[in-house]
Amino acid sequence: MARLVVLYMTPKDAAVFDKHYFEIHIPLAKKIPGLRKYEVSVGGVGSPAGDSGVHLVATLEFDDMAAIQAAFASAEGQAASADVQVFAPGDRTQMFLFENREV
Amino acid sequence: MARLVVLYMTPKDAAVFDKHYFEIHIPLAKKIPGLRKYEVSVGGVGSPAGDSGVHLVATLEFDDMAAIQAAFASAEGQAASADVQVFAPGDRTQMFLFENREV
Repeated sequence: MARLVVLYMTPKDAAVFDKHYFEIHIPLAKKIPGLRKYEVSVGGVGSPAGDSGVHLVATLEFDDMAAIQAAFASAEGQAASADVQVFAPGDRTQMFLFENREV
Repeated sequence: MARLVVLYMTPKDAAVFDKHYFEIHIPLAKKIPGLRKYEVSVGGVGSPAGDSGVHLVATLEFDDMAAIQAAFASAEGQAASADVQVFAPGDRTQMFLFENREV
């Protein structure tokens, strides 16, 4: 499997962020072709030192890296990417793409 | 489920890092009580902009946040944490802890 992990830094207004994320972004992102599983963090995101600075972690699973590339290139992927700029503009997100295996 | 995601920044010597991670750290970390699943990234970790600056992503799953706290407090968790300081000293790691649910 391959995974897209998105870290959303703590927004100015968490309630506004959450409303947009859960009501608009998730339905948009769930339309992305090739998406096998979509998970989000619940409650706070911690770190061993305490506050992590991250508000929400999204984990999207695909069959492989080629499927992620195809997802980004699709109309649905472009719509979801454009939406991120609405509720998390600028450098308020970090995205990581990788093949994943159990050890 | 609850998840511990560890981002290891690109080390000075990737071969040395990998040897230690796969031969020493994984066997140590797999002893941590309550660990349900342990996954690592394979090959490079990308970002939409290209290089992510991250060498390896580790994802450890536990039943809930209490299980992660207990894991960190255990002798096996402490040994694994101490080992991280050997192969990834200083601020070369980021750790995120969160409850996770499918949407």
